[in-house]
Amino acid sequence: MYKQNKRKILNDPVYGFVTLPSDLVYDLIEHPYFQRLRRVKQLGLTDFVYPGALHSRFQHAIGAMHLMGQVLNSLEAKGNLIMEVEREAAQIAILLHDIGHGPFSHVLEYTLLEGVNHEKITEMIMEKLNVVFDGRLNLAIEMFKNTYHRKFFNQLISSQLDMDRLDYINRDSFFTGVAEGRIGVERIIKMLDIHKEGLVVEEKGLLSVETFLNARRMMYWQVYLHKTAISAEVILIKALERARELKNKGKEVECPKDLEKFLRRKIDLATFVKENDILESFLKIDDTDILFCIKTWVNHDDKVLSFLAQSFLNRKLYKIRFSDESPSEEEINKVRQHLLKEGVNPQELKYFYHVGSISNAGYVLENSSIDIMMKSGEVQDIVDASDLPTIKALGKIVKKHYLCWAKNVYLHF
Amino acid sequence: MYKQNKRKILNDPVYGFVTLPSDLVYDLIEHPYFQRLRRVKQLGLTDFVYPGALHSRFQHAIGAMHLMGQVLNSLEAKGNLIMEVEREAAQIAILLHDIGHGPFSHVLEYTLLEGVNHEKITEMIMEKLNVVFDGRLNLAIEMFKNTYHRKFFNQLISSQLDMDRLDYINRDSFFTGVAEGRIGVERIIKMLDIHKEGLVVEEKGLLSVETFLNARRMMYWQVYLHKTAISAEVILIKALERARELKNKGKEVECPKDLEKFLRRKIDLATFVKENDILESFLKIDDTDILFCIKTWVNHDDKVLSFLAQSFLNRKLYKIRFSDESPSEEEINKVRQHLLKEGVNPQELKYFYHVGSISNAGYVLENSSIDIMMKSGEVQDIVDASDLPTIKALGKIVKKHYLCWAKNVYLHF
Amino acid sequence: MYKQNKRKILNDPVYGFVTLPSDLVYDLIEHPYFQRLRRVKQLGLTDFVYPGALHSRFQHAIGAMHLMGQVLNSLEAKGNLIMEVEREAAQIAILLHDIGHGPFSHVLEYTLLEGVNHEKITEMIMEKLNVVFDGRLNLAIEMFKNTYHRKFFNQLISSQLDMDRLDYINRDSFFTGVAEGRIGVERIIKMLDIHKEGLVVEEKGLLSVETFLNARRMMYWQVYLHKTAISAEVILIKALERARELKNKGKEVECPKDLEKFLRRKIDLATFVKENDILESFLKIDDTDILFCIKTWVNHDDKVLSFLAQSFLNRKLYKIRFSDESPSEEEINKVRQHLLKEGVNPQELKYFYHVGSISNAGYVLENSSIDIMMKSGEVQDIVDASDLPTIKALGKIVKKHYLCWAKNVYLHF
Amino acid sequence: MYKQNKRKILNDPVYGFVTLPSDLVYDLIEHPYFQRLRRVKQLGLTDFVYPGALHSRFQHAIGAMHLMGQVLNSLEAKGNLIMEVEREAAQIAILLHDIGHGPFSHVLEYTLLEGVNHEKITEMIMEKLNVVFDGRLNLAIEMFKNTYHRKFFNQLISSQLDMDRLDYINRDSFFTGVAEGRIGVERIIKMLDIHKEGLVVEEKGLLSVETFLNARRMMYWQVYLHKTAISAEVILIKALERARELKNKGKEVECPKDLEKFLRRKIDLATFVKENDILESFLKIDDTDILFCIKTWVNHDDKVLSFLAQSFLNRKLYKIRFSDESPSEEEINKVRQHLLKEGVNPQELKYFYHVGSISNAGYVLENSSIDIMMKSGEVQDIVDASDLPTIKALGKIVKKHYLCWAKNVYLHF
Repeated sequence: MYKQNKRKILNDPVYGFVTLPSDLVYDLIEHPYFQRLRRVKQLGLTDFVYPGALHSRFQHAIGAMHLMGQVLNSLEAKGNLIMEVEREAAQIAILLHDIGHGPFSHVLEYTLLEGVNHEKITEMIMEKLNVVFDGRLNLAIEMFKNTYHRKFFNQLISSQLDMDRLDYINRDSFFTGVAEGRIGVERIIKMLDIHKEGLVVEEKGLLSVETFLNARRMMYWQVYLHKTAISAEVILIKALERARELKNKGKEVECPKDLEKFLRRKIDLATFVKENDILESFLKIDDTDILFCIKTWVNHDDKVLSFLAQSFLNRKLYKIRFSDESPSEEEINKVRQHLLKEGVNPQELKYFYHVGSISNAGYVLENSSIDIMMKSGEVQDIVDASDLPTIKALGKIVKKHYLCWAKNVYLHF
Repeated sequence: MYKQNKRKILNDPVYGFVTLPSDLVYDLIEHPYFQRLRRVKQLGLTDFVYPGALHSRFQHAIGAMHLMGQVLNSLEAKGNLIMEVEREAAQIAILLHDIGHGPFSHVLEYTLLEGVNHEKITEMIMEKLNVVFDGRLNLAIEMFKNTYHRKFFNQLISSQLDMDRLDYINRDSFFTGVAEGRIGVERIIKMLDIHKEGLVVEEKGLLSVETFLNARRMMYWQVYLHKTAISAEVILIKALERARELKNKGKEVECPKDLEKFLRRKIDLATFVKENDILESFLKIDDTDILFCIKTWVNHDDKVLSFLAQSFLNRKLYKIRFSDESPSEEEINKVRQHLLKEGVNPQELKYFYHVGSISNAGYVLENSSIDIMMKSGEVQDIVDASDLPTIKALGKIVKKHYLCWAKNVYLHF
Repeated sequence: MYKQNKRKILNDPVYGFVTLPSDLVYDLIEHPYFQRLRRVKQLGLTDFVYPGALHSRFQHAIGAMHLMGQVLNSLEAKGNLIMEVEREAAQIAILLHDIGHGPFSHVLEYTLLEGVNHEKITEMIMEKLNVVFDGRLNLAIEMFKNTYHRKFFNQLISSQLDMDRLDYINRDSFFTGVAEGRIGVERIIKMLDIHKEGLVVEEKGLLSVETFLNARRMMYWQVYLHKTAISAEVILIKALERARELKNKGKEVECPKDLEKFLRRKIDLATFVKENDILESFLKIDDTDILFCIKTWVNHDDKVLSFLAQSFLNRKLYKIRFSDESPSEEEINKVRQHLLKEGVNPQELKYFYHVGSISNAGYVLENSSIDIMMKSGEVQDIVDASDLPTIKALGKIVKKHYLCWAKNVYLHF
Repeated sequence: MYKQNKRKILNDPVYGFVTLPSDLVYDLIEHPYFQRLRRVKQLGLTDFVYPGALHSRFQHAIGAMHLMGQVLNSLEAKGNLIMEVEREAAQIAILLHDIGHGPFSHVLEYTLLEGVNHEKITEMIMEKLNVVFDGRLNLAIEMFKNTYHRKFFNQLISSQLDMDRLDYINRDSFFTGVAEGRIGVERIIKMLDIHKEGLVVEEKGLLSVETFLNARRMMYWQVYLHKTAISAEVILIKALERARELKNKGKEVECPKDLEKFLRRKIDLATFVKENDILESFLKIDDTDILFCIKTWVNHDDKVLSFLAQSFLNRKLYKIRFSDESPSEEEINKVRQHLLKEGVNPQELKYFYHVGSISNAGYVLENSSIDIMMKSGEVQDIVDASDLPTIKALGKIVKKHYLCWAKNVYLHF
């Protein structure tokens, strides 16, 4: 059914030319499941803050696949044996590693679903594609699940220094314009090596790794955890929750059919796995569906839903205040009083403010170390290899709390 | 109603920091009419070819405004008097110059509307905003309409070397990754001067202007007139036309309310001006509405509409062949025969192939010259100032014809 | 004597166009004292490691002057009053801040002179130029010496975040190709402000400052303190010391006349100040003179001098080993034994190996803090403002010891 | 004698990392003949205009070698067979292609020598190195001389689209900061293919080639033929000619020994080939020797020589006027009268003005076409393949005349 294709070259603004390595890769990219990623923004709502950040998961996935090719070339040149089938499998695994992302990537991961993370969904989709492609994704899936015996392949897909991270930090820096995040991807790649089938960094690459960790830290504070994006996210989630509440109360709320399944109820893992049509529907929704809802709900009869949709659409965001500790009852009460004075209905207060917290935990993999191959031949954890407190500091998980609320509700009623 | 705002800085991946020059500019950007541009892709469907090209009209408008500030600074430093009100008006005029663009920018300009170009709509929106902002856009509108006596302001907004062009060629090059389009914007800006209230280029800038014209030419062949994007455009237009036909036949075709006004009939200028709600609705539609339709129509009963929607959504594009002359009857007939054999209904053939032509005319303003200020003090048209045939060649309008058709129709029925 | 000049624009590969702000600046740049900096490499012998690092003090000085213009524009835009005379003085002060550098910048600072650092010489040259330019450098000199009452001007010239540093880290990164050193100069500049006539960083600039400190750290380990450059430096210094020894013994050693004054004896501050011709001669020597000596000495009768010159010229560098502690007597003895076996004369051993140490102290100004203007209005030292151990780590002075020796002496005799 | 070396990586600011492909290449780079190129500026005196242009032939040679590796990779990926020995030979040939350049590259090519171009000298040096390296350069020399049967190798070394050109245009653009010269090297390389052992460009690469030709044209007018650099060149040549005249008259003129051979008389090809020590001496001179002379001659008794040296050293350049026709006798006479009035001795007039001409001929290889492989399978000259007059225009040889003279002679006497 899929015919053989010609060597294909793509233009990527970040790396220049990207060559698709095989027909199978080409066909996977052409597949509607993968094409969907064109309509899923890599950085969710971050373009509310950084207008350039409109890039898609599609681009990121292809970029990560490109880096996988680069790193395997470099590892080979250092004398490590990489078989042709391993190369293709590794490139496919990283190409598909994010195929389970839903609308706006991470933004709605816990609103549409209950305890079903995107990695789980990715796995299910990979299995589905494996059927379509007659089992040719077997090895890629093994690598992805870390059941393949050469561990470094999985580390290149998912670890502190995987190709996913190298691509996204670099790419997100490029599109946001936050120069502090630009990293010397090429340099880091050239510093990687294999030791007992595990990924190591040559000692002379220590500084590069430190720079990388620092760039990553810049990116999460300046970009990934930016307060304006969080405020937008809060509003969007509240809108979806309000829509769900209305639906459950029997009110009509316009919504595309496939999305509706996730709006009516939050789907849990058991349901996701059991009911076949759920994944089918999931594979049909993207940013468009959410945006369409928002645009439609602006005119909804329910004032709360319409207020939330309008706030989001016209970027009238909630005010947000960060703190090291949870906001006190007193602070929260002040906000509630303010909202009541603005005419908010007591039962609907929860749609107009939010108490939450964020942390860089998603960016710091706690159980994953970075191994340094010392000139002495010994392998050390980077924390021991570097005499700097910086390294420890960079790996620390930091948690911040916030209080977020609507300022001028009355304007809109 | 609009309170005073603080000096605001945006991150732009192309220029780095962009400073908003005044509160009025800030408030215009915050206005829903302008926020809509966040959801209108600058390059329509070009991301089908260049996956990075997801940037919006919003970014372009702000970039052009930034360049306007730069060029006015440079002109001032050369001793030209620019008043504060003129500066703000010029920046506003260029900021709003594209506010009349509809979904996917140019793509649907002649499908949704009949003889209503985006410049006309821009003017109407500017007038509308002028009311909201108590007449503070008067001078900007004069500059935009070229009724202001200092002609160079209009030339900076709309001419062969305007800030619009400088921004978009540079920006589109950045996001597509087509390096040949990167231009030395700063250099060109520093070469501009004013002579008798008209815009001129200093003689020593001749080479820079040539490079710019060349980069522009690269961009229209490699990007703006790329055959894959044209093929996607043909399919999208056919889908909208089919939807319109079905609607007119009384079939139900799902579609957002505001877009529907433009789908039911093609709206002409008289109607646009007369019926107030038309502009209101226009200001509510963006790329989302079209994409939602496409996604919905994939499941439409009508096989033609569903085929078109599917082809677009999953990027199964029509084949396209360019030629210097119109395709012959014979060629067209071959395509028709092929389609009939694939099972296409004779009355519906028109949805499965297209004969069209493209030209670079939109990028070459025929009536607008580039004036060179020679060291001798004389002002010459660039065509006379440069002894190279290049210049003439670069300004030439080139027209290409194409034939575009569906390859594997049967697959989808 | 100096006629009025026109506004002049230079091309700088780092910043694009650089505009010379005034005729006085233009005339200073044209002056032979400043033109000499064209022939003094910014990074001494670093091109032995990074072949691109051939850039000159001339470029750096102009770059720093450019940044001074940028930061003053930004400070003005924030409402700080900067007078025209202050602006010119600040730009002149930074333009001339390195004019006292001798051949290969820092490399020979302690070989040709005894306790006369380049800052002292800069001051003397500035005074000399002030006479030529009829006292028009008075204010620049005050700023340079930190006797002007608005302290922030001196801080922009010489502090942890001065325009000197911002330029050189960025520029050295550009020319070496060490991407980790690229800093967002523009971003940092926009974060600076004035508080009680002192330079402060806005709180939201904290992350940028951290990134900057990190980039600086990368640069000193990867570039400024690179072992290959140190090895080349050791050889060059040994060559000059051997030449001096031979001269003192009455042997003829060819050498340009002006350089000879510094070769015969190491000149101390008292002598430098007292004897007028010393400064005159200093202002005539540059990299060329040293290179000429090396090239000539390759053929000198003295085998030691010729060996040193050859090693340098053909890049047959000494081996070098770093350690946290001083190398032990045992290690040193091993090297000495090796050299004796290679046929080195015991009295001349000192020319064939070197024990030394390096530290980042020159890049970390111990007595200079970075002040952060908190959102609360309070001013804090960055060490207190940031909760990260990183900051302290970055400011720490690190010292490393090395042992450096000739490997294959016999080859050359 | 030369031991085996490890894989070695260099930092190049233009391409990032450059990997040395073999031990032989490493050893060639380490050889003193090649190390000399570190001290020969790629762009002669262009840093008088563009202060960043201090890059060396050393960097360019390594860059071109890097691109050779890239293009061979790409050609291989397209199915062309490249043997390992061919790959190394091609990389060596391009690495050494400029090794015959003397001080300041092209500047003194016709002053020190008479009818001995740098290509001829390159060949002689390659033969000399071939002896040192036991015949391992045989194939590289064949490729360089175009006696190897697979012609495309020579075309990659020397043709309109060779790796030499691709590197220097890109690199010179990088270091001068003339952005118009930046070319998409990677893109052009990917468009090259082999047809009947000859180099061709795929049809879809036509626009890229046009952009390249245009960038090249920008570079020769903005950089290579810049009038300020020509003026500096004229002064330097006059200084050397004056020195030669004085020497021939028996006056003492200080000068390094090896350079002296070329100063006493202009050496012709026969002499160069016959007298062995000439090449030996040539291999010892570089920019340093010339600069040393200039610095020394500033204090020479001969007022003409000292004037010329001073003008050069302190950048007090001659005025220069370009014209399409040779300057008329009248114009020249006016200059002569002016100089006489300034006190110039009639017999020495020739040192104070110069009539010359420049052309882009050196950059346009007249006998070398660019072949385009059309989609039809046919191979066409680019002039026929492109319908644009641009192409012809770009290949045209343009000649300009100039008159150059000292303005303020009296100041210096």
